[in-house]
Amino acid sequence: MAKNPSWVLRSYPSGMPTVGNWMREDRPIPEPAEGELLLKTLWLSVDPYMRGRISPAKNYAAGFGLGDLMSGGGIGEVISSGSPDFKPGDIVMSDYFGWQPFTSIPASSAKVVTATDAPVQASLSYLGMPGLTAYFSLLKTGKPKQGETVLISAASGAVGQIAGQIARIKGLDPVAIVGTDAKLEWCKKLGYRQGINHRTSTDLVADVAAACPNRVDVFIDNTAGPIHDAAMLNLNTFGRVVIVGTIALADRFDQPDIGLRHLRKTLITRARIEGFLLDDHEHEFETAKADLLSWYKQGLLETKEDVAEGIEAVPYAFVRMLNGENFGKQLIKL
Amino acid sequence: MAKNPSWVLRSYPSGMPTVGNWMREDRPIPEPAEGELLLKTLWLSVDPYMRGRISPAKNYAAGFGLGDLMSGGGIGEVISSGSPDFKPGDIVMSDYFGWQPFTSIPASSAKVVTATDAPVQASLSYLGMPGLTAYFSLLKTGKPKQGETVLISAASGAVGQIAGQIARIKGLDPVAIVGTDAKLEWCKKLGYRQGINHRTSTDLVADVAAACPNRVDVFIDNTAGPIHDAAMLNLNTFGRVVIVGTIALADRFDQPDIGLRHLRKTLITRARIEGFLLDDHEHEFETAKADLLSWYKQGLLETKEDVAEGIEAVPYAFVRMLNGENFGKQLIKL
Repeated sequence: MAKNPSWVLRSYPSGMPTVGNWMREDRPIPEPAEGELLLKTLWLSVDPYMRGRISPAKNYAAGFGLGDLMSGGGIGEVISSGSPDFKPGDIVMSDYFGWQPFTSIPASSAKVVTATDAPVQASLSYLGMPGLTAYFSLLKTGKPKQGETVLISAASGAVGQIAGQIARIKGLDPVAIVGTDAKLEWCKKLGYRQGINHRTSTDLVADVAAACPNRVDVFIDNTAGPIHDAAMLNLNTFGRVVIVGTIALADRFDQPDIGLRHLRKTLITRARIEGFLLDDHEHEFETAKADLLSWYKQGLLETKEDVAEGIEAVPYAFVRMLNGENFGKQLIKL
Repeated sequence: MAKNPSWVLRSYPSGMPTVGNWMREDRPIPEPAEGELLLKTLWLSVDPYMRGRISPAKNYAAGFGLGDLMSGGGIGEVISSGSPDFKPGDIVMSDYFGWQPFTSIPASSAKVVTATDAPVQASLSYLGMPGLTAYFSLLKTGKPKQGETVLISAASGAVGQIAGQIARIKGLDPVAIVGTDAKLEWCKKLGYRQGINHRTSTDLVADVAAACPNRVDVFIDNTAGPIHDAAMLNLNTFGRVVIVGTIALADRFDQPDIGLRHLRKTLITRARIEGFLLDDHEHEFETAKADLLSWYKQGLLETKEDVAEGIEAVPYAFVRMLNGENFGKQLIKL
């Protein structure tokens, strides 16, 4: 039985998750049953949605139980295949990689990573879930019109960095909200016209107003919390607010979120506030991937990865990302 | 100079408006200038949106200043006309009737009330603004599908009584939220399948859950406040919440509305929450009025009016309506 150090959930976080919520167990290298693949993990992805999966509350995805092996997006090489559709040596991606060096997944969840000019891990980033989230949340749910102001929170993150650049490519006016000056500087390099460091701002509502003189037409909300308020209070008539993530609530996930409510503002502006989940757009993934790849090939998309190394780093990278300490898409290279 | 007792705004309400916020002044009977009409007021309408117009805060409609003549929807008879489009004796409606027995309005704001089988004041009720609000908020913004559960707050009010019946006519499953048992009984007579008296409910969230076993697909929100929360907490996947009014905030209109925020619920359900203003649907008014009139003629629409009498009653009727003490569309007959 070879060594296969695997991360399992030890306890549900009561506030912001800490590394102590997980523990490492040496698990056997799985034997893939029929319809399964045994994979050598090459890359793992940690993403904000996973905060919801370590909460005991009901969520859109089934959560982990205590003692369960953690899993999430990853890329790996097929070692042995219980499916005629895959053969050893194939490089595949799936949303069901265990947090472990050797993992088995249902073959039905796997896709061969098509060779492109982009590095293989792009399938976990701008050519994958975060890039697609940026694409559909902005273009399909946000429905921006030429020249409109698009405010994007967590603007240098995995979703935000792509959303801002799509906005630039589409002739929109992107404005960033980020957590450090270095992130802000990079966002401007990506084509964000303007931006705000919410951690140093002393009046976020006024700063959003100053950065968005024509008010906010589309808000891609990756955070919730006070940033949401600042956007709502600066919303234009017929503004659209796409609720993509709530990472600002990561430290109080199972508590009621008490704060300012914006129903009169919603009425007066005839705002549309809409929840976003990428799965609902699956039938259009191929079109979107083709667009993203074409922009990448034309040199129109610049991206940043924040890469941790080794299986031991996974929960550290996850907690780091939840705290906004990553700079670019958080990945783990095994 | 004949007596023309007119209501002017004396003070901005600091909480729930009271009759003392207005005072009566004897004003001269207006001399209509060119482009104006002098009218004898027959009916006045008081409506929740007018709460926003007596607030000093910025709103979607310009507010009244202190000492200004109050105005709102009404029906009257043309006494003298400064417009070739109207002649003495015409019965017209407008949103700019002063709260006074004789009033002058811009002819451009007036429409001749077309003779129908319905009484003339129906143009202020089910064939007018409240009926159109019900029609468009439910059918256009709510976009209900056959058999879906439609929860409606202030369900026996001017908008709610029509929304519930349109839902019934369209094969939907309407559920009422009201403030008295008598209103609830009447709502069931109108075709609401089920309902809740929010003033006697001890657990509104549980009561909405019990009344909506398939959860809430469309919520026509005339109130905001705790009723909004109960609906949000029972929202179905892809639920639609139409923000039509916020009458539950009438007593704290200029204060921040602090309470439970529903961003994670919005994300998880992919809800769409959208502000509604009737003016945005003006290009489709004639179609909607034809539908409403046809349903009325077929005996499919039952309606209730709550009629106060005389010019002295206007602010009393308004305050009564804001407190939910009216039963049916609140009107004043002069």
